[in-house]
Amino acid sequence: MTIVTCRQIAPRVGEPSHNVELTVSAVRAGVDAGATVIVLPELATAGYVFANDAEVADAARSPDDALFAAWADAVRPAGAVVVGGFAERSADGAVFNSAAVVDGGGVLAVYRKTHLWDHEHEWFVAGDEPPPVVDTTVGNIGVAICYDLEFPEVTRLLALAGAELIAVPTNWPLVDRPAGERPPEVVIAMAAARVNRVAIACCDRAGIERGQRWTEGSTIIAADGWPVAAAGPGEGVASADVDLARSRNKHLAEHNDAFGDRRPELYRVAGALHDP
Amino acid sequence: MTIVTCRQIAPRVGEPSHNVELTVSAVRAGVDAGATVIVLPELATAGYVFANDAEVADAARSPDDALFAAWADAVRPAGAVVVGGFAERSADGAVFNSAAVVDGGGVLAVYRKTHLWDHEHEWFVAGDEPPPVVDTTVGNIGVAICYDLEFPEVTRLLALAGAELIAVPTNWPLVDRPAGERPPEVVIAMAAARVNRVAIACCDRAGIERGQRWTEGSTIIAADGWPVAAAGPGEGVASADVDLARSRNKHLAEHNDAFGDRRPELYRVAGALHDP
Repeated sequence: MTIVTCRQIAPRVGEPSHNVELTVSAVRAGVDAGATVIVLPELATAGYVFANDAEVADAARSPDDALFAAWADAVRPAGAVVVGGFAERSADGAVFNSAAVVDGGGVLAVYRKTHLWDHEHEWFVAGDEPPPVVDTTVGNIGVAICYDLEFPEVTRLLALAGAELIAVPTNWPLVDRPAGERPPEVVIAMAAARVNRVAIACCDRAGIERGQRWTEGSTIIAADGWPVAAAGPGEGVASADVDLARSRNKHLAEHNDAFGDRRPELYRVAGALHDP
Repeated sequence: MTIVTCRQIAPRVGEPSHNVELTVSAVRAGVDAGATVIVLPELATAGYVFANDAEVADAARSPDDALFAAWADAVRPAGAVVVGGFAERSADGAVFNSAAVVDGGGVLAVYRKTHLWDHEHEWFVAGDEPPPVVDTTVGNIGVAICYDLEFPEVTRLLALAGAELIAVPTNWPLVDRPAGERPPEVVIAMAAARVNRVAIACCDRAGIERGQRWTEGSTIIAADGWPVAAAGPGEGVASADVDLARSRNKHLAEHNDAFGDRRPELYRVAGALHDP
């Protein structure tokens, strides 16, 4: 079994140094609580509601930044892995909304968000590489960021590529929903987990930033599609013991397999794989 | 607005003549209640838990069967459309788990289920044509049958092909779920509606057949992903006034469109469109 934890922290936009410390503390707290996979929010070190380019530039870090060495130091004793969002500055100065996968040896992979939400277009360049599945010591971890999750193609491709857990750093702006319902993003994640038979851990952030209220919807979902932990309102934690072996079993019934039953030749005919 | 109704009836396996009458009565009842789209369960005229080939053969009908003329007669005065499941016998004698789309002029389309569930493989041949979107007087209706719904590619392709409502005749065998949760198939339909911004009407069946208990989960879901009607336990009805215009609007935010934001070139790279 694998202890997965989502640390629903509250970064402060415009205070990247504070946020770096906040993430390192969150990683340490996750390790101290026994977690072997620690998921942090989208843009955890940057904040989200930027006022100007300078704030973005000030928050942006390259993958060789000391930030990631600090995450690596924090997880090394436990053999744990952290997946967390940050603003990435590339060698040529472009800035991406990225997530890093880090273990005790350092940065294993960086994914640049490929589906940008709304005003993110003003601050970030969209990535041009598909979301990765990273072979770690604790299992195959797929990575998606926030709005990526709303494309069933993304969760499908990660699962087909062998993800046992999909880690989703998010900043979910609070949207209206009927009383008693989960956030719509959680419903989407539940369905993605169920149809792909893969565990999913969404780490949202907490608080209100420049008037933007967050959903505070961090949720861990097992490979059968049912939530097993949620952080609830405010700063907090969702943690669960997740059996990643279940994500490797796509058997549904005597004659059914969630992947083997796909009919890609039919999906292609109807144009679903192409632009509308 | 369009009144959509799912008639959660209880066909009897081995009694196709009875079931034909049952479906005609259900269509009439839907029309009498003001519906312009009437959805019936999967295999509504056949039953599901077959004991032998003879039962399947006895239930199978061709698309020129009087059954469909009776449905057409029932909907003609109201200008309504019915989508219902039946066992189809083709010209060469093969039998399919099919759904017909019928208006007052007769059969508009027949779809042969492309993803067969478990023991259906013993009785039916899988269809080799993708699920269709049918241009009807009440709107563009996409069709999928039961297990088809668990392939996000199917709902995606129907929505991309212009479906304003996806009608899903189903026979959902009851499966375990945590207390207080909706059936998993409904969660999957909610997510499909939300990410594709398309209304979905799933018509389940009622009762217990040869020991098989059905979920009785008929649910109508609006294009924002939230259920607007459910039949509940037993024989019953789910009906709702559905604004199909909402399904034509994929706008999500100032800079976002649910379809325009897709990155098919990335999904292709990672193999999600291909066999695992």
